Amino acid sequence: MSQRRRGYARPLDLGGKVDLSHGAGGRTAAQLIEQLFAAALDNEFLAQGDDGAVLPMPPGRLVMSTDSHVVSPLFFPGGDIGCLSVHGSINDVAVMGAQPLYLAAGFILEEGFPLADLARIVGSMGQAARDAGVPVVAGDTKVVERGSGDGVFITTTAVGVLRDGLNLSGSRAQAGDAILISGHIGDHGMAIMACREGLGFASPIVSDTASLHGLIADLLASGAAVHALRDPTRGGLATTLNEIAAQSAVGMLLREDAIPLRREVAAACELLGLDPLYVANEGKLVAVVGGNDAERALAALRAHPLGRDAAIIGAVHVDPQHFVQMVTAPGGRRMVDWLAGEQLPRIC
Amino acid sequence: MSQRRRGYARPLDLGGKVDLSHGAGGRTAAQLIEQLFAAALDNEFLAQGDDGAVLPMPPGRLVMSTDSHVVSPLFFPGGDIGCLSVHGSINDVAVMGAQPLYLAAGFILEEGFPLADLARIVGSMGQAARDAGVPVVAGDTKVVERGSGDGVFITTTAVGVLRDGLNLSGSRAQAGDAILISGHIGDHGMAIMACREGLGFASPIVSDTASLHGLIADLLASGAAVHALRDPTRGGLATTLNEIAAQSAVGMLLREDAIPLRREVAAACELLGLDPLYVANEGKLVAVVGGNDAERALAALRAHPLGRDAAIIGAVHVDPQHFVQMVTAPGGRRMVDWLAGEQLPRIC
Repeated sequence: MSQRRRGYARPLDLGGKVDLSHGAGGRTAAQLIEQLFAAALDNEFLAQGDDGAVLPMPPGRLVMSTDSHVVSPLFFPGGDIGCLSVHGSINDVAVMGAQPLYLAAGFILEEGFPLADLARIVGSMGQAARDAGVPVVAGDTKVVERGSGDGVFITTTAVGVLRDGLNLSGSRAQAGDAILISGHIGDHGMAIMACREGLGFASPIVSDTASLHGLIADLLASGAAVHALRDPTRGGLATTLNEIAAQSAVGMLLREDAIPLRREVAAACELLGLDPLYVANEGKLVAVVGGNDAERALAALRAHPLGRDAAIIGAVHVDPQHFVQMVTAPGGRRMVDWLAGEQLPRIC
Repeated sequence: MSQRRRGYARPLDLGGKVDLSHGAGGRTAAQLIEQLFAAALDNEFLAQGDDGAVLPMPPGRLVMSTDSHVVSPLFFPGGDIGCLSVHGSINDVAVMGAQPLYLAAGFILEEGFPLADLARIVGSMGQAARDAGVPVVAGDTKVVERGSGDGVFITTTAVGVLRDGLNLSGSRAQAGDAILISGHIGDHGMAIMACREGLGFASPIVSDTASLHGLIADLLASGAAVHALRDPTRGGLATTLNEIAAQSAVGMLLREDAIPLRREVAAACELLGLDPLYVANEGKLVAVVGGNDAERALAALRAHPLGRDAAIIGAVHVDPQHFVQMVTAPGGRRMVDWLAGEQLPRIC
């Protein structure tokens, strides 16, 4: 995404629509990049204007993660595809314990998409990136014909730096560990579903989309023995815990009544026949910490605005079958299996 | 793209098609990742199975670039969207003078896309990545409903390391510099167009898609004073040179008869009314080097298999208007302007 400095006969018309020339690498594409993308994402690295951004790199290991975003609708209570795509990739780097440093963004636009909507989305990306302190340093834009895409898809890649000595992994959970969640589950997925289904609630469901690296930094600084962190996105809490249980070759037992769940999210799930354990979150943290440090970790999470409603929701135990189970509110016990098949398409 | 190790009732059926569950983060998605993606892209970093890959990083500056690929058709003479997406991002990092280290890949799949075609594409990515010595260390897969995508889109991000003291930029061209190209222009774009238009030639036009970092390393090792490197993709040689001229605030004069152009590409361009100067390349290098080092740079390029047909095609001069001009074969002089509007959609 070169930021080419030239004069244009007219400023970009935000009443217009994306056309194929916006992806062709010529003057029209350059104008879109300069007047819409570069203006919203403005930073010294993007302004270098070369094929690749040259970036200072502190010592440590590199952490890299990528996410494609196809959420529908593009705008939803609490956010849009722009800020979501910033938060998503930042969080994947942050849960490794790394400091996120830089973002790259690839846009696939459908011919006919309103430029005003694109400006709103890119503006939201820029704001989220500034709030997170992680600039979008490289980008690319392609345009496909009407009917070959769906408005806008955004693939973001985040890189960060991981200090020596810190090793978090889904494979490091061990018997005796405590399992924590940083707040209410299912908010993002049900915000999207409520939009799609036209559900109206007294208090509308708002996506939790947020960057978690500040919360994670506070947790790590607390001195608690953190073994694994994850953000439970697609597939929800249940899928994330099954992944960790399988990677670490352990079992888990959750307590249903300890898992934070908003009343309106529970109601929407019931209405739509969905289990909130499988509904996506975009600003929640799962932490597996040494059992003796559970309270210390909980206090660190609760001291941060994004962790106010954090809770200890279960424990890790020896289980050669790597099952995740749950003591239900009535007192029974049930399996929390992997998500089988499709639950919520295009949730992120 | 976690590589989760679990048993599946059946191996993935390559006679099947992509469905929405393949993007849902559950068991079906995990099976696709493990049996198709991880198998083809196999490397120790991807196998970590966490949200972000943890990677060794040599000292130096970080270089980062991203490219979304929407080429149509997905398979073409000389390559496919898989290897193209590897080469494209590697080249954007390599033209900064950096050593490419790692790739991330985000896939957006359309419901109904044949799994056999996906396997072929991912296999081609894996081969290209191995040939280049740049592993795909992170990935993501999303699925959109039939009619909301077009088979497969791939966004790749490359990171590399740039040694201290080396500074290449499109803003460093200066009067007196020589302009070189590493081989024939227009091969990729016309390979795609010949496919789309069903043009048959005695010798079919083959895409030049290739990773350029080996060629670039040899050029830099020659000791020639290299000021700017670019790979002239979308918008072709003309657009790339206009970008450099604008960034560096210089003029350029090309010699048409010096620019390598295959007979069949010239014929196809003539048939379709296209100017080869604006047609995309995916394995060609533009080098702007100190005038005294032109021959040394040319020899270095020609000594590499990807630069056998390299040529000195023009020179940089003082021009407050930053025009790119060309002495035509008949001896006249014409402007080589920016590409205005759309020429070839979905060429990469």
